[in-house]
Amino acid sequence: MNSKLVECVPNFSEGRRPEVVQQILDAVRAVPGVRLLDYSSDASHNRSVVTFVGEPQAVKEAAFRAAERAMTLIDMEQHQGAHPRIGATDVIPLIPVGDTTLEECVVLARELGQQIGEQLQIPVYLYEAAATRPERRSLPQVRRGEYEGLKSAIHLPERQPDFGPARMHPTAGATAVGARPPLIAYNINLNTADVAIAKAIARSIRGSSGGYPSIKALGVLIEDRHLAQVTINVCNYKEVPLTRVFETVRSEAARYGVQIVGSEIVGLLPLEALLEAASFYLRLEHFQPDQVLEQRLQR
Amino acid sequence: MNSKLVECVPNFSEGRRPEVVQQILDAVRAVPGVRLLDYSSDASHNRSVVTFVGEPQAVKEAAFRAAERAMTLIDMEQHQGAHPRIGATDVIPLIPVGDTTLEECVVLARELGQQIGEQLQIPVYLYEAAATRPERRSLPQVRRGEYEGLKSAIHLPERQPDFGPARMHPTAGATAVGARPPLIAYNINLNTADVAIAKAIARSIRGSSGGYPSIKALGVLIEDRHLAQVTINVCNYKEVPLTRVFETVRSEAARYGVQIVGSEIVGLLPLEALLEAASFYLRLEHFQPDQVLEQRLQR
Repeated sequence: MNSKLVECVPNFSEGRRPEVVQQILDAVRAVPGVRLLDYSSDASHNRSVVTFVGEPQAVKEAAFRAAERAMTLIDMEQHQGAHPRIGATDVIPLIPVGDTTLEECVVLARELGQQIGEQLQIPVYLYEAAATRPERRSLPQVRRGEYEGLKSAIHLPERQPDFGPARMHPTAGATAVGARPPLIAYNINLNTADVAIAKAIARSIRGSSGGYPSIKALGVLIEDRHLAQVTINVCNYKEVPLTRVFETVRSEAARYGVQIVGSEIVGLLPLEALLEAASFYLRLEHFQPDQVLEQRLQR
Repeated sequence: MNSKLVECVPNFSEGRRPEVVQQILDAVRAVPGVRLLDYSSDASHNRSVVTFVGEPQAVKEAAFRAAERAMTLIDMEQHQGAHPRIGATDVIPLIPVGDTTLEECVVLARELGQQIGEQLQIPVYLYEAAATRPERRSLPQVRRGEYEGLKSAIHLPERQPDFGPARMHPTAGATAVGARPPLIAYNINLNTADVAIAKAIARSIRGSSGGYPSIKALGVLIEDRHLAQVTINVCNYKEVPLTRVFETVRSEAARYGVQIVGSEIVGLLPLEALLEAASFYLRLEHFQPDQVLEQRLQR
C-alpha cells in the first residue's frame, strides 16, 4: 500500500435511477490508481454516496470526472428528495489516509474546486478544513436554503462562490468541496433503559452544548436490547480520541450509577485510532505503528 | 498483502564470517515470493538470526535452500559459541501471519523437516507445536547436551530424530524444526527502583512458577531510569493477551503500593494483539479487523 492516499466520499443527487449511478461509478472506475470501495443509494433522499480511494492526483481526477458526468445526467431543476442539497454533485469531501495530512487534502480540495469551477462552470464552495471564510467551515451553513434558495441568493456578496461563476449551473447547480479528518461512528451502550441518562451524557460530551467541539452525540433507546445508547460521531480522532470519549462517558454515567456495557464501531476507522486506544490503556512508551507486523509487510 | 503468510526465523551457527551469512541470505533471496525482513549476527554467540516472510510453500523452499547452503559452509566440528546449538542450521521456527493458522504451520514444519531429513540426510527434531512427543515441545529439551552431547546420544531411542538418519550429519549436525505463535517481547516499568518487587511480580505471572504457562518473565533493574522492570515474553497472545498480562501485573504491583508507569513493545507484534487491547478496554462488541481502513485497502 502506498502510504500517501486520499479517500473521497462524494454525494450525488440521484438515488432512484441505478443506470445513472452506474454511469457516475464508471467515470470513477475509469481512472487508473483509484479503487472504488463502496456506494449506496437512498430513494427517499434521492441521493447516492460513493467511496473511493487512491493517490491524491488520481482521486482528484476521478472526482472531477464524476462531477462532469453527474452534470450531464442530473438536472437539479427536476430534483426532489428529503436530504439537503445544492447541486448534482452535492458535496465532495477529501479525507487523509495513511501518511497524508489534512493540510495536503486542503490543497487538493482547492485544486479540485478550481478545476470544477473553471472547466465545468459550476460554482464551488470550499468547506470544513478547506474553507476560506470561517462561516463556511460548516456544511449546513454552505447549503443554507438548498438548491432553490442558493439560486436566488448566489449573487449576494456573502454567497459568492470560491471558484466558478456567481450563478447556478443550469443543470448541476453548485458543489461544496472540502477536506476533513476521517469520521468515526461510535456507539456506547449503557446498562440502563432510561434514555434520559443517555441524552444527558450526550449533552455533556458534544460540542453543540459545550463539550468537545469535534464530537456530535445523541441519546437514543435501542429497543430490542432494552438499553440506552449514546450514539456519537468522532469527527477528529486526533483532537479527541476514542479513549477520551469512552472515559468521559464512563465518568458521566457513574454519576447516575450507570455503567458502560459495551461499545461499537460502525463501519470503518483508521488503524491509528485503535493503536491510540491500545497505547493509552497499556501506557505504551515509544510505540511506532510500523512495529505492527502487517504494516511492516506493506513496505 | 496475501493473507496466507508464514514468517520464518531460522538461526544459523555462524556469526563471525559475514561472507558466509551473506551466502545464506542469498539462498533465501533467490526464492520468488519470499521477503527478507531482517538479519543480525552475534560474534560471541557465533550465531545469526534471519527473518523472512512469504507464502507457505515459498517459505518452506527458502528455509530448505538456506539449510542446504549452511550445510556446505558451516562445520559444526569447528564451531564454538556461547549460545546452545545442535547444528549448522540450528533451529527453524515457522510462525503464522495474517489468516494462517498455527496448525497450518505444524503441517508445513513436518513437510520441511521431512525434506531436510531425507534430501540433506540431516537428523531433524520437530519441536513446540510441531512436536511428535510431549517432551520435545521444549526446545531446550531437544537441544539437551548440545551438538557434542547429541552426537554421542543420538543412537538412544529417546533421542531418535523425527526425520533423517539417527546419526549426526558430518558437518551440519542436527536441526530443530518447529511451529509456534508469534512471540511478543513486552516490558512493564514500575514506579519503584526495588527490583525485588519486579522479581516477585515476574514469579506471579510466569509459567515456570505457577503462572500463565505461555508467559516467561524476569524482574530487572533499568539503571539509567532508576526503575524496576518486569521483562516478559508473551509466547501465545491468543491464550494470554497483553491486556491480561498488564492487568495481572497492575494488580500484583498494587499489593506493594506500586504502580505501572509505562510499558513497551520490543520489535514487532501482530495487529490482532493490539486490536485485542483496544477491544478489551473499549468493551467493543462485534468488532472485525476488516473494519480497519488500512486492512480493507489491502483486499
